[in-house]
Amino acid sequence: MTGTNAPLRVAMIGYAFMGRAHSQAWHTAPRFFDLARRPETAVLVGRSSASVTEAAHRLGWAEAATDWREVVARDDIDLVDICTPGDTHAEIAIAALAAGKHVLVEKPMANTLAEAESMAAAARAAAAARVRAMVGFTYRRVPAVRLARELVAEGRIGEVRQVRAQYLQDWLADAEAPLSWRLDKEKAGSGALGDIGAHIVDLTHFITGETVTGVSGTLDTFVNERPVAESFSGLHGSGGTERGPVTVDDAAVFFGRLTGGAPAVFEASRVAWGRKNAMRIEISGSLGSLAFDFEEMNVLHLFDATEESRTAGFRRILVTEPDHPYIEHWWPAGHGLGYEHGFTHQVVDLVTAIADGTQPEPSFDDGLAVQRVLDAVERSAANHSTYTPLGD
Amino acid sequence: MTGTNAPLRVAMIGYAFMGRAHSQAWHTAPRFFDLARRPETAVLVGRSSASVTEAAHRLGWAEAATDWREVVARDDIDLVDICTPGDTHAEIAIAALAAGKHVLVEKPMANTLAEAESMAAAARAAAAARVRAMVGFTYRRVPAVRLARELVAEGRIGEVRQVRAQYLQDWLADAEAPLSWRLDKEKAGSGALGDIGAHIVDLTHFITGETVTGVSGTLDTFVNERPVAESFSGLHGSGGTERGPVTVDDAAVFFGRLTGGAPAVFEASRVAWGRKNAMRIEISGSLGSLAFDFEEMNVLHLFDATEESRTAGFRRILVTEPDHPYIEHWWPAGHGLGYEHGFTHQVVDLVTAIADGTQPEPSFDDGLAVQRVLDAVERSAANHSTYTPLGD
Amino acid sequence: MTGTNAPLRVAMIGYAFMGRAHSQAWHTAPRFFDLARRPETAVLVGRSSASVTEAAHRLGWAEAATDWREVVARDDIDLVDICTPGDTHAEIAIAALAAGKHVLVEKPMANTLAEAESMAAAARAAAAARVRAMVGFTYRRVPAVRLARELVAEGRIGEVRQVRAQYLQDWLADAEAPLSWRLDKEKAGSGALGDIGAHIVDLTHFITGETVTGVSGTLDTFVNERPVAESFSGLHGSGGTERGPVTVDDAAVFFGRLTGGAPAVFEASRVAWGRKNAMRIEISGSLGSLAFDFEEMNVLHLFDATEESRTAGFRRILVTEPDHPYIEHWWPAGHGLGYEHGFTHQVVDLVTAIADGTQPEPSFDDGLAVQRVLDAVERSAANHSTYTPLGD
Amino acid sequence: MTGTNAPLRVAMIGYAFMGRAHSQAWHTAPRFFDLARRPETAVLVGRSSASVTEAAHRLGWAEAATDWREVVARDDIDLVDICTPGDTHAEIAIAALAAGKHVLVEKPMANTLAEAESMAAAARAAAAARVRAMVGFTYRRVPAVRLARELVAEGRIGEVRQVRAQYLQDWLADAEAPLSWRLDKEKAGSGALGDIGAHIVDLTHFITGETVTGVSGTLDTFVNERPVAESFSGLHGSGGTERGPVTVDDAAVFFGRLTGGAPAVFEASRVAWGRKNAMRIEISGSLGSLAFDFEEMNVLHLFDATEESRTAGFRRILVTEPDHPYIEHWWPAGHGLGYEHGFTHQVVDLVTAIADGTQPEPSFDDGLAVQRVLDAVERSAANHSTYTPLGD
Repeated sequence: MTGTNAPLRVAMIGYAFMGRAHSQAWHTAPRFFDLARRPETAVLVGRSSASVTEAAHRLGWAEAATDWREVVARDDIDLVDICTPGDTHAEIAIAALAAGKHVLVEKPMANTLAEAESMAAAARAAAAARVRAMVGFTYRRVPAVRLARELVAEGRIGEVRQVRAQYLQDWLADAEAPLSWRLDKEKAGSGALGDIGAHIVDLTHFITGETVTGVSGTLDTFVNERPVAESFSGLHGSGGTERGPVTVDDAAVFFGRLTGGAPAVFEASRVAWGRKNAMRIEISGSLGSLAFDFEEMNVLHLFDATEESRTAGFRRILVTEPDHPYIEHWWPAGHGLGYEHGFTHQVVDLVTAIADGTQPEPSFDDGLAVQRVLDAVERSAANHSTYTPLGD
Repeated sequence: MTGTNAPLRVAMIGYAFMGRAHSQAWHTAPRFFDLARRPETAVLVGRSSASVTEAAHRLGWAEAATDWREVVARDDIDLVDICTPGDTHAEIAIAALAAGKHVLVEKPMANTLAEAESMAAAARAAAAARVRAMVGFTYRRVPAVRLARELVAEGRIGEVRQVRAQYLQDWLADAEAPLSWRLDKEKAGSGALGDIGAHIVDLTHFITGETVTGVSGTLDTFVNERPVAESFSGLHGSGGTERGPVTVDDAAVFFGRLTGGAPAVFEASRVAWGRKNAMRIEISGSLGSLAFDFEEMNVLHLFDATEESRTAGFRRILVTEPDHPYIEHWWPAGHGLGYEHGFTHQVVDLVTAIADGTQPEPSFDDGLAVQRVLDAVERSAANHSTYTPLGD
Repeated sequence: MTGTNAPLRVAMIGYAFMGRAHSQAWHTAPRFFDLARRPETAVLVGRSSASVTEAAHRLGWAEAATDWREVVARDDIDLVDICTPGDTHAEIAIAALAAGKHVLVEKPMANTLAEAESMAAAARAAAAARVRAMVGFTYRRVPAVRLARELVAEGRIGEVRQVRAQYLQDWLADAEAPLSWRLDKEKAGSGALGDIGAHIVDLTHFITGETVTGVSGTLDTFVNERPVAESFSGLHGSGGTERGPVTVDDAAVFFGRLTGGAPAVFEASRVAWGRKNAMRIEISGSLGSLAFDFEEMNVLHLFDATEESRTAGFRRILVTEPDHPYIEHWWPAGHGLGYEHGFTHQVVDLVTAIADGTQPEPSFDDGLAVQRVLDAVERSAANHSTYTPLGD
Repeated sequence: MTGTNAPLRVAMIGYAFMGRAHSQAWHTAPRFFDLARRPETAVLVGRSSASVTEAAHRLGWAEAATDWREVVARDDIDLVDICTPGDTHAEIAIAALAAGKHVLVEKPMANTLAEAESMAAAARAAAAARVRAMVGFTYRRVPAVRLARELVAEGRIGEVRQVRAQYLQDWLADAEAPLSWRLDKEKAGSGALGDIGAHIVDLTHFITGETVTGVSGTLDTFVNERPVAESFSGLHGSGGTERGPVTVDDAAVFFGRLTGGAPAVFEASRVAWGRKNAMRIEISGSLGSLAFDFEEMNVLHLFDATEESRTAGFRRILVTEPDHPYIEHWWPAGHGLGYEHGFTHQVVDLVTAIADGTQPEPSFDDGLAVQRVLDAVERSAANHSTYTPLGD
């Protein structure tokens, strides 16, 4: 099962939104990319036998199962893909790594810093045996984002001076949008901060090659009570007018400082009417600037300050050329990619790293670095926004 | 094989660029949509046994074959998907329809008007036996395009007054871009006119619900000789400095008149530096306007003139909401789709029409309507751009 | 009065929309630019003594007068600025030139080709005596447009291959917008064609340095009857429900061919809902492309095909840098200019040419070249859109 | 001199960048607007007699003077317009108000909070005698900004929940850009914070109708030494390789909380390559959002969440319609305004308030409110970014 050309047998746990995206990626990757090991969608795991069986059939998995512990222990499984809610990540990932399985875990890596630290330790231990662990920050695999990272690494915008990053959505802007587990601090850990703020922190780490060292932040909840969703109210036999408390943040605003000294400002919001998935980052360097907005995901904007000023301007680079990251495997120039292509690229990079015996990125340590930033934001917000260095 | 819930067994002929897109669609559609009949990727057909076998394995087709006539005649095949070059479409499509197979044929439907007419006649005959034929103008299935069509049909922009449509690419802007069969009139029929001009004519027909009745046009070739590509020069043992003639147009400009009387202006170009796949259409009606550009394929712009002027403006509609066409089957708002999603939607609509016993669109008659426009443009261009009504 | 440093005494005829813009320019130019001759706003001419006196006071003209013939003959006037409706241009301009006055005439230069030819002949004759004549195509003086012209002239986009130009407005899109003299063929000559189509033809001539040699076109009127405006109905004592015929085009579509052989496609429309003053031009050359839209008048888009494809993209040049045309006299970078700045630049260039003894551009011959194109469009439209070479 | 219809005689002190803008406004306002009192550009004041005389001639002022104290005391002056550097504002403004003159003072109102407080006290005292004082935050007079303010006041976006504002420039991004008084803390007070950060704070106050109550911030200087500019080095006889210290911030990042409880995040930077004058503000409310960017100053973006989601989207409102603020006095729709129009509108509003006997806005108290925010940012930045309520 570990030979270089052997198939890579995958078990996936969970098959909701993220599971569907991962499933599509496992199927698609080998059709468009030459993979050293061909993934096999072996087992789909869920709690309800009937549901998981139906899902396995629909999504194209050879087998369905209900006990993840049993699956994780199977000899014929090489990799465990964890798409369950965040509060289960640590237990499953640590067990899978202990069983010698490669692990892909969706973000957020964990709900607490302590869990994330345990996971990172487990991953470090597993790496000695060439067992690999990776966190699913798929936005790193958007071609325009990867191009941004390459340009920064090549020095194209010089030294990084400032980062401004936003992740704006509006699905909670309507005060009548219902409660869900995502608005419950016990189950979700945090709100906009951990759900989408995590992405822009990781994106900053990835593109700049630096990490945040401390932060000053504030958290807000604009709608404190929401209607209990049907599934919830059903539990209580209520009539639908019931309301329950929101215990997480709707928005997080914070600024921090990177290892190189640059200030970075972040905003995550789920109440920004009209912004659907506006994950935006703009980096000002000593020789130029880069700007990206996921709502136009096939585009990267570059300002090159070494141009003569008469014809200088932000270039709208359509990142669909054959010499752009990942693109030669897809379509001709101008035929853009969509959201789920990031998941396919994630599979490609993970399988390649496994086959090559290298550490895939983002590692659990990379995920832990993000968790530490989120934790510091919460501590700063609870302490008059005072600048709070990251814990070790 | 024709029961409503029976699987739909597909044979696909050709597996280059278009074949890969179609293949991906056949696999993906049933995973995201509830289809009345589940497609089975049964047979892949190509000329070289070794190549088609490798491709069938990679792309996930159960079987490989080299003789399309044999495959088309098989009892266990329900649908033939034709992804070969245009000069073979008529023969294959007519044979398949005659054998009682549903047919999906890539655009351009045919290289000549005569072929297109034969194909349309065959499709009309087959329809009597509930055998369906469809042309692959996939851009009709971009959610933003379909939304545009719905808004026009609902009267949201009133009566259509003007259409301006462009399809701009730049892959032939470089005079050193090599010759290929696409630049050979015998093999390709025409250049930008048939390749991409066909799309904007069909798009106009689709969104307005009207058709072009006559045109005035001109055709241009800017680079008359190009280097013979390696594969070509190989045929002649040449050293690579050989050049050959371009016998098709690089660009077509024409205006026409719709059945409702509105003027429409079209431009197709493969030499428009910086425009990669800029298929743009703007429709001005008596109550508003619509604008679309494929380079931002998840966006539709709408100007509603019934708004008070103080807050009126083109709305940038991100066509990723659950109430937008096709979207509820995909991702949350703001998580855009890509180029190949149109192919998946094409499979969905085709399978649904077959199961429902209705005529899928665009039909071969719709394809023929486009061919007639292209033919009239060529005749006008050859006759001092004089306005040329379509032939019957 | 003709010495190099003498003031330049101006008489302006007409003080409606265009007169206000010209007046502002005459006052503003010397405050921001070093002019070899300082303009003096000497006499304002209008038909009604009371109105013109009030206007002269408000707009800052030293004197008011009602007889343009008298003013044109005065020794103390150096330049006549004609802002009256088009049907009076020829008579006034020819008289002023004959009297040895420099002339600035608003566009359209004339309502008929014959008038334009007489005016051009008069200007040629006057030039021998260093008397200058200029047409008011002010869009040539938008900094972004002038930058475009410079870049083409420098070869930055190579050889011009294609031009696509549009001038879209929507003030006649509402079928209840009232009749005015602009919709009366006798008074206005033509509709969208002459009013705004003229601008995009001149813009094409200016930026490419070439001229249109023949055209194929079509004209449309979408609203054939309109309510008679109050001022009109007053003439007839009507109650306001009266309607009158529109005798000019609402929209013109045509394509032509430049002296260098490149095809150019034009559209002028006053019924394009949502487009307020969208004068757009895009030029594709052999080495790059340029794009401009007046609705974003401080921006020029440049695609430079000599860049490596990985970072190539349309650059959004904010044309507000000190090394951009005219800008060093205005504000710091990013502090954009507005519509009327083109008029100020027009004054600057005209005064400079007069002082230097050179021919200002656009000359009456340049204006005539545009008129010839418009005339050919009308002839083509009346002849089945057949390609119509320009008359001599 | 104080009668309602009397002319309004103006003395302007200073005639650099800002003086030119103000001068243009004093001349232009009465030509496009009906003013209750017609401004007269009476006296221009500067230090050098020769220079100010030349400037008065060029800019159109009747008289030149060198002693502002003398001018401020003159009976024939009604209004003093202060365009000098910030460290002189308090003394001149207080003297002018004491002499019963209306005062317009450029921003920043003062270099220190103490000065601003004295000025505000003087203005309050003067108001009792109907003597008016106003601060020159001209961006309030951009039509799109005023429209934003009206829409918020009308409740169009509901309750304000979040503000994100940026003011990005790049004129100090080049490390070789020279030192100037603006980079000297003694003369300029602060850097990006006071120069451009002040604008986005005032803009937030104006559009939301609320004020910032406390902040958490950080300040950065990226280039600590710069070449001494020619004029500087001349003082020391240096050869041009001399460098001097930058003692102000290049960038300021801070977040605050509005009176209504909403969080607001601000960034001011003079090192953001490619952003020339990107003063951007986006406000998310409970019923919609607004977005503005000065680099496209004639546009306001509005998202109206009460629209059906199928056709909802940010509307790009071209703020050039007759029913938009100030526009009916200018040009037809789509013919945009430029930077200096804000100054003309400032004159119009100030003269109107004086004639009507009402308090013009922004008052010195409004200016003081901004100064208090800037002061709190500096205190927070010096105290680990701890949240710092405004002083009283």
